[in-house]
This record gives sequence, C-alpha cells and structure tokens, in this order.
Amino acid sequence: MSVVKSTIPDSARQVTGEALQSTLVDLLGLSLTGKQAHWNLVGPRFRSIHLQLDEVVAAARTFSDTVAERAAALGLPPDGRPETIASAFTLPGPKDGWVRDTDVVAVMVESLEAAIARLRERIEATAGPDPVTQDLLITITAELEKQRWMFAAEHVSRED
Amino acid sequence: MSVVKSTIPDSARQVTGEALQSTLVDLLGLSLTGKQAHWNLVGPRFRSIHLQLDEVVAAARTFSDTVAERAAALGLPPDGRPETIASAFTLPGPKDGWVRDTDVVAVMVESLEAAIARLRERIEATAGPDPVTQDLLITITAELEKQRWMFAAEHVSRED
Amino acid sequence: MSVVKSTIPDSARQVTGEALQSTLVDLLGLSLTGKQAHWNLVGPRFRSIHLQLDEVVAAARTFSDTVAERAAALGLPPDGRPETIASAFTLPGPKDGWVRDTDVVAVMVESLEAAIARLRERIEATAGPDPVTQDLLITITAELEKQRWMFAAEHVSRED
Amino acid sequence: MSVVKSTIPDSARQVTGEALQSTLVDLLGLSLTGKQAHWNLVGPRFRSIHLQLDEVVAAARTFSDTVAERAAALGLPPDGRPETIASAFTLPGPKDGWVRDTDVVAVMVESLEAAIARLRERIEATAGPDPVTQDLLITITAELEKQRWMFAAEHVSRED
Amino acid sequence: MSVVKSTIPDSARQVTGEALQSTLVDLLGLSLTGKQAHWNLVGPRFRSIHLQLDEVVAAARTFSDTVAERAAALGLPPDGRPETIASAFTLPGPKDGWVRDTDVVAVMVESLEAAIARLRERIEATAGPDPVTQDLLITITAELEKQRWMFAAEHVSRED
Amino acid sequence: MSVVKSTIPDSARQVTGEALQSTLVDLLGLSLTGKQAHWNLVGPRFRSIHLQLDEVVAAARTFSDTVAERAAALGLPPDGRPETIASAFTLPGPKDGWVRDTDVVAVMVESLEAAIARLRERIEATAGPDPVTQDLLITITAELEKQRWMFAAEHVSRED
Amino acid sequence: MSVVKSTIPDSARQVTGEALQSTLVDLLGLSLTGKQAHWNLVGPRFRSIHLQLDEVVAAARTFSDTVAERAAALGLPPDGRPETIASAFTLPGPKDGWVRDTDVVAVMVESLEAAIARLRERIEATAGPDPVTQDLLITITAELEKQRWMFAAEHVSRED
Amino acid sequence: MSVVKSTIPDSARQVTGEALQSTLVDLLGLSLTGKQAHWNLVGPRFRSIHLQLDEVVAAARTFSDTVAERAAALGLPPDGRPETIASAFTLPGPKDGWVRDTDVVAVMVESLEAAIARLRERIEATAGPDPVTQDLLITITAELEKQRWMFAAEHVSRED
Amino acid sequence: MSVVKSTIPDSARQVTGEALQSTLVDLLGLSLTGKQAHWNLVGPRFRSIHLQLDEVVAAARTFSDTVAERAAALGLPPDGRPETIASAFTLPGPKDGWVRDTDVVAVMVESLEAAIARLRERIEATAGPDPVTQDLLITITAELEKQRWMFAAEHVSRED
Amino acid sequence: MSVVKSTIPDSARQVTGEALQSTLVDLLGLSLTGKQAHWNLVGPRFRSIHLQLDEVVAAARTFSDTVAERAAALGLPPDGRPETIASAFTLPGPKDGWVRDTDVVAVMVESLEAAIARLRERIEATAGPDPVTQDLLITITAELEKQRWMFAAEHVSRED
Amino acid sequence: MSVVKSTIPDSARQVTGEALQSTLVDLLGLSLTGKQAHWNLVGPRFRSIHLQLDEVVAAARTFSDTVAERAAALGLPPDGRPETIASAFTLPGPKDGWVRDTDVVAVMVESLEAAIARLRERIEATAGPDPVTQDLLITITAELEKQRWMFAAEHVSRED
Amino acid sequence: MSVVKSTIPDSARQVTGEALQSTLVDLLGLSLTGKQAHWNLVGPRFRSIHLQLDEVVAAARTFSDTVAERAAALGLPPDGRPETIASAFTLPGPKDGWVRDTDVVAVMVESLEAAIARLRERIEATAGPDPVTQDLLITITAELEKQRWMFAAEHVSRED
Repeated sequence: MSVVKSTIPDSARQVTGEALQSTLVDLLGLSLTGKQAHWNLVGPRFRSIHLQLDEVVAAARTFSDTVAERAAALGLPPDGRPETIASAFTLPGPKDGWVRDTDVVAVMVESLEAAIARLRERIEATAGPDPVTQDLLITITAELEKQRWMFAAEHVSRED
Repeated sequence: MSVVKSTIPDSARQVTGEALQSTLVDLLGLSLTGKQAHWNLVGPRFRSIHLQLDEVVAAARTFSDTVAERAAALGLPPDGRPETIASAFTLPGPKDGWVRDTDVVAVMVESLEAAIARLRERIEATAGPDPVTQDLLITITAELEKQRWMFAAEHVSRED
Repeated sequence: MSVVKSTIPDSARQVTGEALQSTLVDLLGLSLTGKQAHWNLVGPRFRSIHLQLDEVVAAARTFSDTVAERAAALGLPPDGRPETIASAFTLPGPKDGWVRDTDVVAVMVESLEAAIARLRERIEATAGPDPVTQDLLITITAELEKQRWMFAAEHVSRED
Repeated sequence: MSVVKSTIPDSARQVTGEALQSTLVDLLGLSLTGKQAHWNLVGPRFRSIHLQLDEVVAAARTFSDTVAERAAALGLPPDGRPETIASAFTLPGPKDGWVRDTDVVAVMVESLEAAIARLRERIEATAGPDPVTQDLLITITAELEKQRWMFAAEHVSRED
Repeated sequence: MSVVKSTIPDSARQVTGEALQSTLVDLLGLSLTGKQAHWNLVGPRFRSIHLQLDEVVAAARTFSDTVAERAAALGLPPDGRPETIASAFTLPGPKDGWVRDTDVVAVMVESLEAAIARLRERIEATAGPDPVTQDLLITITAELEKQRWMFAAEHVSRED
Repeated sequence: MSVVKSTIPDSARQVTGEALQSTLVDLLGLSLTGKQAHWNLVGPRFRSIHLQLDEVVAAARTFSDTVAERAAALGLPPDGRPETIASAFTLPGPKDGWVRDTDVVAVMVESLEAAIARLRERIEATAGPDPVTQDLLITITAELEKQRWMFAAEHVSRED
Repeated sequence: MSVVKSTIPDSARQVTGEALQSTLVDLLGLSLTGKQAHWNLVGPRFRSIHLQLDEVVAAARTFSDTVAERAAALGLPPDGRPETIASAFTLPGPKDGWVRDTDVVAVMVESLEAAIARLRERIEATAGPDPVTQDLLITITAELEKQRWMFAAEHVSRED
Repeated sequence: MSVVKSTIPDSARQVTGEALQSTLVDLLGLSLTGKQAHWNLVGPRFRSIHLQLDEVVAAARTFSDTVAERAAALGLPPDGRPETIASAFTLPGPKDGWVRDTDVVAVMVESLEAAIARLRERIEATAGPDPVTQDLLITITAELEKQRWMFAAEHVSRED
Repeated sequence: MSVVKSTIPDSARQVTGEALQSTLVDLLGLSLTGKQAHWNLVGPRFRSIHLQLDEVVAAARTFSDTVAERAAALGLPPDGRPETIASAFTLPGPKDGWVRDTDVVAVMVESLEAAIARLRERIEATAGPDPVTQDLLITITAELEKQRWMFAAEHVSRED
Repeated sequence: MSVVKSTIPDSARQVTGEALQSTLVDLLGLSLTGKQAHWNLVGPRFRSIHLQLDEVVAAARTFSDTVAERAAALGLPPDGRPETIASAFTLPGPKDGWVRDTDVVAVMVESLEAAIARLRERIEATAGPDPVTQDLLITITAELEKQRWMFAAEHVSRED
Repeated sequence: MSVVKSTIPDSARQVTGEALQSTLVDLLGLSLTGKQAHWNLVGPRFRSIHLQLDEVVAAARTFSDTVAERAAALGLPPDGRPETIASAFTLPGPKDGWVRDTDVVAVMVESLEAAIARLRERIEATAGPDPVTQDLLITITAELEKQRWMFAAEHVSRED
Repeated sequence: MSVVKSTIPDSARQVTGEALQSTLVDLLGLSLTGKQAHWNLVGPRFRSIHLQLDEVVAAARTFSDTVAERAAALGLPPDGRPETIASAFTLPGPKDGWVRDTDVVAVMVESLEAAIARLRERIEATAGPDPVTQDLLITITAELEKQRWMFAAEHVSRED
C-alpha cells in the first residue's frame, strides 16, 4: 500500500529516504543510550552530567520526530520499531550497570563524533536530491556538534 | 561495582528489581511503537489518533524515567539499552510501513491490555517487599487503563 | 451494549463499581451544594467563605471527572445525570434562600464529615478488589479531610 | 430574610428573577448531561466529541456562575440545589449507559436548540425590565448557538 | 481646536458626551476613595476587605480608561484632571484617618448604590443616541452591581 | 445543500445574513490592506505606525473569525474567498509600492471611517431581527472607533 | 519613489523579487481559502479538520509576513492588496457554501501540492541570486510538505 | 482614634509623616494628569507618547500605594481623598481639551522636574528620622528622573 | 481545648499522630540543615551541590506543610516550634562554619538514609490505622530515596 | 579553615557579622513560629489569617536566604542550624496546641515589633561598616513593618 | 593547548575559523555601538528609536553567542576580549556624547550595510568548507537585512 | 550640545559622573571577559562554570544599562564605545585561547574583587553628591559580592 504520493522525483527518493531512515535510527538509539547513561551515572560530577545528558536526549527525541515526519511527508514510511533500532543502530553507548562519570563523558564524545561523521556524509548526498531534507540535516548536525564540544571540553582535563 | 547501597532488605530487592526492570522495558518499548504508529498512520481519523498516540508516548516516556530512577534509588542499575529492549520487549505493535487507523486502534487496545495485565501482577508482587514501588506501579496502571479505555471506546464501533 | 471490556475479574467489578458510582454522586452533589452556598452566603465573613467554597467545588468537580473516567476505564458506565443525583445524593446542604455565614460553616463541616465516613468504608472495601481504585479514593479522602479541617477550625469559635 | 436590597424596581424584579433562575437550571443541567455524555461516549469519533463536550460543560459552568451571581446582585437568591435541578430541568440528555457517538451528536443538537429557544424568549422579556441582564443572556445565547452549529455541522452527514 | 471628527451626528453627541464625562468622574473618584479605604481600614476583617477594595479600584481604573478613550474616539475630549474630580465628584467616601471595617463596608454599599443609580439613568439616555456607548455603560453597571452585592452581603449581619 | 438549520425565523435571516457577510468582507479586506501598509510604509514615524497597523490587522482577523462563525451558527455559510473579497471590498487602501507615513495615516482614518459608517447602519438594521448579532457588531464598532481615534489623533497635526 | 536601497546586485533582484512576490500571493491566498474551508466545513470529521485548517492558516499568515518583510528588506515593495491576490492567486480552493469534509481534504492536498511544486521551482531559481531568500523558501516548503502529508494521510482512505 | 502604634520615636514621626503625605499627593496627582494627557493627546507623535505616558501613570500608581502603606505602617493614616489632592497638588499639568504632543512633552518635563526637586528635599530631611522611608524616596526619585530624561530627550529637538 | 474533631477512631489516632509529628520534625530539621550546607559549602563542586541542596530544602518544606496540615486535619495539633525541633531532631547535619563539598555529600547521604529508615517504620505502622496517612508517607519516602540516590551517586567516587 | 576572603576591612567585619547572624536567627525562627500559627490556628477568621501567615513565612524564608548569602559573601560563615536557632531565638511565638485567631494576631504584632526594634538598631550600627548590608536590613525592615501594620490593623478591634 | 578536536578537515578549518571570528567581532562591536546610540539619543523620535536599537542589540548579542559556540564546537577558540574588539572592529558607530535621532538612523543604516556586505562574502566563502556554518551566517544576514530595512524605511524621509 | 538639563547641582555632577562612567566601563568589560571565559572554558567542571559565567554576564549587562541610563538621566552622556572600553578597562580577564576551569575560577575571583574595591570607593564618594546614584552602586556591589563568594567557594579547594 503506497498511500502518500511523493513530491520529489523517484530518482531523488532513494537517497533521501536512506538518509532520513538512518538518521532516524541514530537519533532514536542516541535517545536510549543517553537515558541509560543518565540513569546509571556515578561519580563526583553526577549532577552536571545527569542534566547535560537530558539535553542530548531531548534534542534527539525532538529531531527524531522531525526526521520521521519529513520521511512521511515525502511518502516514505519511517521505521522506528524496537527491532529495527536494535539491528541497525551502530553508535557506541554505555555498558550495562553503573558507569563512572569520566567514562560517560568519553563514550558520549565518541558516540556524537560517529553520529556527526555520518550526518556530514548525508548532507553531501542530499544536496542535489532534496535541499529541504539537507537543510534539516544541517540543523541537526549543528546541534550535535555543539553537544559534542561540551562533552569534549569536559573530557579534556583527564590527560592533565 | 555495587556503588549505590539499597534502602530495602536483600529479600525485597529481587522482586522489586524485576518488577521495575520489566516495567521499564514495557514502557520504553511502548514509547517506540507508539511513535511508529504516530508516524505511519493513515485513514480518515488520522489527526485524532495521531494526537492521541502522542499522549501515550508522553506518558510512557515520563513513567519510564520515574521507574528507572526508582530502580537506581534502590541501588539497582536499570537497563534501557536498545539491545535490551529488542530482546525483552514482548507487547504487540504496528507492522512496518503505512498502517490504517482501525488497525492502529486495535493494536493499541491489545498492547495496552497486555501491559496492564503484567502491571497488575507486579502490583501484587511488590505490596510486601516495597510499598513505595507498588504505589508507583499503581499510578502507572491507572494511566494506562485510562488510555486503554479511550482506544477501546473508539474501537467498539467497528463490529456494529 | 457492554462495549468496553474490563481489566479486572468479575468478582472485583461489583464492589469497585459501587464504590465509584456512589463516590461520583457524592462529589457531583457536593459541587452543587457548594455552589449554592457560594452564591447565597451572607454575613461579615462573606468574602473568606465565598472563596473557600469555590475551592471545595473545584476539588469536587476535578475528582468527579477522575472517578467517572476510572469507572469507564474499568468497563463500568458511570451515571451522573440530574435525576440520578437528585435521587441518590444524601449529604446535607444549605437550605433555600440567603444563608448566614455561621450556618454555612456548620453545614459544610457536617456534609464533609458524612462524605469522609462513606469514603473510608469504600477504601476498606476496594483494597482487595482493585488497589488502583483504592489509591484514588485515598487521594480524594485526603483532600476532603483537609477541607473539613479548615471549616472545622473556623467553626470552633462559635461556642466561645 | 430579605437581606440584599435590589437596585431595580419591584415591577422589574419578577421577570428578571424568573429569567435568571430558569437559565441557571438549564445551564447546571446542561453541565451534568454534557459530562454524562463525555464519560459514556463510544464510537470511532470518540476523541473529537469527548473533547468538544468538555467545552460545552466549561461554558455552561462559567455562565451558571455569572447568572447566579447576577441574581444575587439584584437581591434575588438563586437556587441551584440538586433537588431543584432534578425537578425543574427539562432539556433532553443522553440515556443511561454507553452511548454511540452519532446519538450523542443528535441529542446535543436537540438539547442546545431547546436551550436557545428558551433563552431567546427571555432576551425579549428582559429588554425593558433590566438591559444589564438582557446583555448577559445575549452573550450566553451567542456561545450556545456557536456550540450548536458545531454539533449540527457534524450531524449533517448522517442523512447522506 | 476641535481636532478629532465625530462618527455620530451632533444631536447625539451632547447626551453621549455628558454620560461619558460624568461616568469618568464617578469612576476616577471611586478609584481614589477605594484606595483611601484600602489604606486606612482597621478592624478584625482588615485583610478580606483590604483585598476586596483593591478589586473595586482595579475595575474602576480599567473602566475609567475605556470610558475616556470612548469619549476621545467620539471626538469629545474627556476631562479627568484633579480639580475636575474634586468639584464634580459627589459619591460618598470614607472620612479622614483610620476607619473601622464595618464603616467601610457601609460606605462602600452606599457609594456603589449611588453610582449604579446614576449609571442606570445614563443607560436609558444613551440607548438612542449611541448604542455602542450604552453597551459599555451596561458592562460597567453589571460589574458595579456585582461589587455592591458582595459588600451588601457582608453588611447584612450588622443588624442581627 | 442547506445543511445547518437556522435558529432564527426566515424573515430575520436575510437582514442578518447580509449584515454579517458584508462585515466579513470589510474585515478581511482591512486585514489585507493593513498588512500592505505595514510592509510598504516609509518615513520617520515608521516604527510607531508599523506596530499600530499590526494591532488593526490582529483585531480585523479576530473579528472576521467571530463574524464568519456567527453566520455559520445561524445556518448561513459565510464567503471569504479571494475572488469575493476582490469584487465586494470597497474600503479605500494604500496604493501599490512604498507609501509615506502621512499618507498611511490619512488612508487609515478614511478607511476606518467608512467601515464604521457601514457598521452603524448594520447595528440599526439587526436590532430587531437578531440582538445577538447586533451585540457582536457593537463590539466591533467600539474597537474600530478606538482605532480610528488613534489614527485621527496622529493625523490632526498635518493641517497646522 | 525607490526608497529602500537593495543589498543584492540588480541582476539578482528580479529573480528574487518574483520568487518572493509570487510566494506572498500563494500564502495570502491560502490563508483565505483555508479560513473559507474552516468556516464552511460540514461532515462527521468536522472538528478534526476544523482545527487542522487553522494550523495551515496560522502557518500561511506567519510565513506571508516573513516573506513580505524579506522583500521589503531587499528594497522590493511587496504587494498583498486584495485586488492583487484576486488576480494573481491560482491555487485551487473550496467552492462557495457548505463543503463536505472529504472534499475539503481533497482540495487541500491538491492546493498544497500545487504550492509546493511552485516553491521547489523558486528554491532552484534563487540558489544563486540570494541564498538567504532560498533558505526561507526551504523552511516554508518543509512546513507545507508536512501539512500536505497530514491531509494526504487522511485522504488515502477514500479509495479503499 | 490612634490605633496603629508607631515603630519610630515621636520626634521622627512628624518629618517622616509630612514627607510621605506630600509625596502621596504628588504621585496621585501625577497619575491623574498623566492619564489626562494620555487621553487628550494629538499630533504626529501620538502613539509613542501615548504609550510613554502610561508608563509614568503605572509608576505613579504603584509608588503611591507603597508610600501610603508605608505611612500606615508607621501609624500615620495617609490621606488620598479627591478633595485633598485637589487642594494640595501643585505640580503643573495639561490644560483642558485636546493637547498637542509638543506641549505634552514640555509639561511633563516641567512637572517631573518639580516633583523631583521636592523629593530630593525630602530625601535629605528623612535621612536621620527614618532611613527606611528615605530608601523608598530614593527609589521613587530614580524612576522619576529616568522618566524625566526620556521626555527631556524628546523635548530637546524643538529649539533646533 | 480539643477543637477539631478527628475523623478516625481513637485507637488509630495515637499511632498516626506520632508518625506525623516525628516526620514533621525530621522534615523541618532537614530543611534547616540543608540550608546550612547550602550556605557554608566550599570546594570545586560548589555550584552543582549548592543547587542540589536547594531541591532537598524545597521538598522538605513542601512536605512539612502537607504533613502538618494532615495532622491538623485529623484533629491532632502539630508542633513545629524552634524548641521542639531543637530537642526532637536527631538526624546528622553539617558542622558549624565552612564545609567541604565532599563532606556535605557524605553527611547528606547519611542524613537522608536515617530519615528514610524512620519513614519506612512509620509506613508499616500506619497501614492499618490510617491508609491516607500511609499514602502520604510513601510519597515522601519515594522523593527522599530519589534525593539520596543522587547524593550517593556523587559520593561513590571518593573511595576510588 | 577561613576560606572565603572578606571584601571589607577587619574592623567592619565584627559589627556586620553580628548584625547578619542575629537577623538570620530572627528570620529563621519567625519562619518556624509563623508556620506553627498557620497550622494550629482556630477561630472565625481562620482563612484570612491562615493565608496572611504564609506571606510572613514566605518573606522570612526569602530574606533569611539573602542574609545568609550576604554573610557568606563577606567571608563570614552563617549559622542556621536547629540548635543555634533554639538557643539564640528570643522573639515571642504561639504556645503549643490549637491557638485562637485573636491570640495569633496579638502574638504576631508583638513578635514583629520585637524583630523590628532589633533591626533598627542594626541599621544604625552597620551604616558606617558596610552600607551594602545596611541597605539589605532596611529592605527587610520595610517589609516587616508592613506586615506588622496589617496585623495591628486587625488587632485594633479587640478593645471595642 | 589544542584541546577540542575538530569535526571538519584542516583545509576547511581556516576559512571557517576566519569567517566565524570576524563575524563575532562585528556582532560584539555592533552590540556596543547599538547600546551607545540607545543611551545618547535625543530628538522627537527618541522613544521609537530607543526601543528599536534594543532589538538590534538583542539580536547582535544572541548571534554573537551562537557564532562563538559554533567556533568552539569546531575546535577553534573564539576571541571576544575587549582589546580584540577595539583593534579589529571596523564598522561605523555614533560619536561621543548626545546624538540626534536623524544622525542615529543614518549611522545605523551605514553600519548594518557594511556588516551585511561582509557577511555575504563569508556566506560565499564557507559554502564548500562547512555548510553548517554557512547556514548560520545566512540566518544572521536575514536578520540584519530586516533591521537595515527598518532603519532605511525611517531614513527615507530626510531628503524630502 | 548639552541637551538634557541635570537635576543635581554642578558641584555634585562631576563626582557622580565619574563614578557612573567608570562603573559603566567595568561592567561592559566584565560582560565581554565573562563571555570570553564562557566560550573558551575547558576541564571537568565545564558545565557548572559555563552556566555560572552566564549569570555574571547577565548581571553585568543589566546593570550597565541601568548605570548608563542613570548617567543620561542626570544629563551626563555615558560612553560605552568599543574604543573607550579598550582604553579604560583595567580589570583582569582570561588570556587568549582555551582556558582551564581552575584558571577561570581564579581570574573571576580576582576580577570581581578588583571591581568591588573600586565600587566601594565610589559608594563613599557619591553619598553626599547623589544618594540616588549611591543606592544604585550599593545594589551592584551586593550582586558582585555574591558572585565573588560563589567563585571563591569553588576556588578554595585548590590549595588543599
């Protein structure tokens, strides 16, 4: 049942669709691993990082909604079911159980860097097929790069 | 590393811990399947159900946070990672791709009923071990039963 | 037409249903008698009690909605029609026409005490059949007992 | 005890008083039947009409307060006790138990039309005796006519 | 300098102008005597009446602005200068120095009754010349009659 | 298809319907010409008048909604389509391109005066047929007369 | 009188100017046809679509303001007068009188698709001449595509 | 009846009392003359000055309340009755009827300068007797001097 | 003077009264020691813990009010006077003068653990006598256990 | 450990420190006795005084925070522990158990008067050593004198 | 110390870094010169321009923060120290002392035009190296061009 | 052009003018160095101090506006141009490039201490010439001393 007609040509739909679907998986996964870290965090910087992680989760949830609705708006049904995330999500996240604050900061920097690199590829890929989607990916990248900087700035002092 | 000491005796921890962990998985899973339906819904009742699903998702997200923090508060690290949800989540949800409004209503009634039945067992199980946890599960059940009623009320007219 | 299936066993439904229906009648009746007093009050304490009565009415209205939706959620259609209230409501209220402030305080203490006594019986009765309903009745009782105290505290000085 | 002196002549009081008292009964009754329908509604349009009925109830409650306080302001104690409503209220309302959405829409159109017809008679009757009361009745009529239109617009498709 | 042209005929301007100007004086004067009572009040009901008087003052100030801007909108410059109020204001008010709560209630009932009687005359007078102005005077009267009722309800208990 | 039954007699419908429809056209047209002036305004008083025009537009939009819903509530489908406005709108407005501030003030005074004159005729015409509609037209006139005064007060200094 | 100097070269002004002016007409027209449908809608889905249309109108009004101010900021006086809209507006809209809900959904899908197709041409045309304007057109397209999806999702069930 | 005991010695009361009473008269008078100008203003700067005058009035009203309650707090009943203001108020204000914008600016500068000069004398006088009162007068002076600057800045260009 | 009659039997009053009174003392004491730490804290984590302590104080103040009003509502006058707290309060708190952040975290964990242990005993004791009171104590315990977890999570890193 | 360096000379620190520490004790004690009265109040004026006492408590809590943080800002660790308040607090307060409204008013007047007298001495003492602290004490005194007036105004009627 | 790793290649960093750093200096400088004009403005249009300048300052401050955080997010430490602004800022601004309103408008048009020209060069330069930065610069340009239009629209009347 | 007349004698103007002008430079400079630190901060306490610095900047900006408007109100044109700040600002600030959290805390303590010392001199100097200005400087000092304490409390642990 292909019920919602697309407003862009067929050639452009595949690239745009893949860019949106993989971004959706990254953002939903990030919202889950961010919450996992938010709950299992221990260490003297608990409160600061506990709050900071909730900002990442809030951004990831809001953007996942925009991305999925953008896919639907183009006639491409998005897929955010638990089993899809489990099989398609590849960004690093915190291990099971309590996690020290320094480890959380390290894994967030790593995870956000991976997400940003993937987003930058999709920005390039969608420039031609759909500038509207590209513009959305640029906005998401700007936000994730800001979040990454903040964790990186906190991370730097470990090697002193 | 068992870092946060519990405030309830060891005998009570296992039952309480299992009740909270399985409730967490149900709620996180529900927040994902609810969003999936929210995005892929089609049919004449689109707008009404689109909005109603967001209320289920909002409730599921808020309660998942309370449940996970309750587990942490008892010294039991909660587990909400993507792979855990994928393997432990058992409630029914929408299939891949566009879904008709009548099917979404049916699957939401079914999914919420299953979640409620599981919660009622945990309410009974935690009464002795930890009345504080029991009180939280009662609150969640009241909300999910209200949501179920609303979908059931919409569902009823199909067999007329 | 029994359209909304219940999530509790048949044995539990009768007790729970009667507890909710009779609480609904008490609260809707109280919201009407509270307003009657609010409008017909005279005496030097007019403004204080005029405002205080509106808090009772607001609480009664909000709780009546929660109670009725709880009944519906359990598959028990609530009955709050004018004729039902007129025949089933038994709490004392203000007489017709202007009422002096001291008389209003006296009748509110009496009315709230009767409502509380009835609620405490239902709390006991629903503990086994449906702890979710019991929890709601406890919340209502706490609020009405607080309101009763405030009228009682104002009432005390009459016998000086 | 006739404690609050009137600001209008005796000849004007009777007509004005009857107009206000019967409007009060209509509005309080409507707030009860509207809630009854809000709770017992079933059918595919459940959510839309469930929300819409709460707007009718909110309007009826707010106006009942203004009407009753207007009567008191004119030295005429209003009567909104349960027994008064039960005996004096004549507008049609939903029957006991679950009610289908199409039936609720029909009964709301009928009930609001009856209320409006009665209000228009009172507008005419109060023009001379008290233009301040007339102005209030005009405002209420405008709101109820708007609500009736919306139910009527939903009702129209039945006879297609 | 007659700078703002009127939108009503000359014959209608005089009656409308006098109605608005004398209402303006009554309202500005009432806002001053209300504040005087608010500040100099003593007695066991201090707090209740202190707050109630501020509601009268707030209403008087808001309406005085609407009335004056209505006059200006009709090309009739309003006059609210201190000397005008002092010479034209005739409503009773509190005496100099501390005033007992019972006396304040009595003088407010008396003052509002006088204001209402004057407004009702102007409502009649402006019906023909300018129904827009009449509608504004009706709104003001409704509010002042409500305020009068509240003071009257508090006043009644003195003669018990 | 005459789908929404009217609550007023046929004789009253024509007058009321014409009054509402022509008011709707005036208000929608005014909201467009007001914005046109808001955007194309130049001159030293730019900011003051730029903001003031937005208040006229906001009032015109809000009232157009109330007027159209009033017509619908009476069973008279309102007509606010672009082609209708273009053919039926007769109030003066700004010319194409940049417009000087003094010219904008002049045209707004002229346009509002024309709108008010037309409204006053409709107030008279609807008094008998439908006092509810008349009351709405009175409210709109009061607001437009206030807006006209403010532009007139700014306009006055040109002929010095 | 060419009073506001442009910040982009002459060659770029024509393309940008045409893109902004035609977008302005589309959005103003859409705000009128959207309201027309909002008021004249009938059918069982009345309330859902009544509200949804107001979101389209709100978006159209906000964007029309941004687009017109962008034109002015570039020294190009925008033209949004009633006669301009009537002659230049080409998007389909609802017919005169009551309109069925299914027809409204169909015409909104059609109208938004036409608007989107026109916007995508302008996005391409303005990339070189003025990337700032292009960015604004991209934002508008994203919003209209989201609105179109929602109507399309509701529309799909007709051909079942 | 000297009912509220003072918390400062008798010697300090007279100076403080006179400072507060004369400040009260200045502020209440200013709130009346400010409104008079607000309503009767004409000229091209109408809107700017119309809004600015309301800020003066709002400040004067708020401070008059604080000053009067301060007097009461010291056991000195304040006097703000219409006749007191008329006889004791000496600051210049606008004449009767329409007033040009340039004249309003001039009279506001003059009036505020006179008020400030009088306040500065009272600041000096109350330093010893009651530093709490002095602090309040300092706050009022700061605000009035800011208001005076703004009118003075607007006034300056006349002599160009 | 035993002025407010109880709504629970005498046998239940003693246990309930003691539970509420000792909880009141714990909460009031905690609000004082929490503020003491808030003010005297020093160390690199100053800002994080300074803010976190204010959340504990806010919760303690809000709950102390609910607990005391619950006692009053049962006819048991609560005792929160300074001398009562000083003699009855037994939870550990910060010493006099500046306190290091690590020491504050340690004492807060210790203090909250003691408060929770005492609350859990009272939850058990009040289950029979007054389920309404028990429900309130459960809510307080849930909040304090959450606060304890957060301090414990920050405390854990000391022994690394 | 003297960790926060002072910004005022040693000679000024002792006077300032004592003024702040004793004000802190007065305010914290007042917040406890105010709440005690708020909870145990009985009598016909219950509601008015119940609310008024909460305003005193709110002011006392806010100012105690400002005072303690001011001490810390000057390098003087404040002391607000339960044992300190119990030993250093000397203002009168309500006795144990229920207290009549007239007695509460009397003790609040007495208690606030004592607090004000002590504050006025500290205002004088800190003028030279630290004008910043003096300014804060002046602000607190103004507020407490306003509160005292209100209770005194209510108290006056006892000797009638 | 190069502590925050960049997410873009080295080749892209220099261009992007220079674009962000010079934009930061322009915006911080503009926020200072805008305030300078806001404070020193004199002339009959004082109030309008005084408020308008604060909008420029608010925009400049908000964007300077976004720009600097964007630089940091890319691993490029931004430089906004006073000495840097003084040496690198080149946009024209108001002279020392009072400035007439017409001169302020002229210098703001000139200053914003210079800033826009510089931004348009950077938009072109960053298109390849970092589309995320380019997107931010486009947003800033759109806002400054809107501000420039408003000052230009006010400026136009000088050459009349 | 000395356009705004002063309300204080010539002798007082010089001292007051110098106090305000040098405070303005300190506050504007502090707002720039605070932002510089906010952006370039690195280290494990990043988030806490990042937020804390924004509170310093917000306070500095708000007070700089009040100080400059106070100068203007006294007829003394303030000077906050970039070149003035660069040449007159003497407080220490962060160096160029990334800065460690411990260094930021140290420089903020130092910078605020210098600002406070300079303010205390000006408080003394302005006591006679202009108590209104002195009052403003006292308020600023209180806020900066509070900010200094917070950084000092964080700084203390370095020498452990």
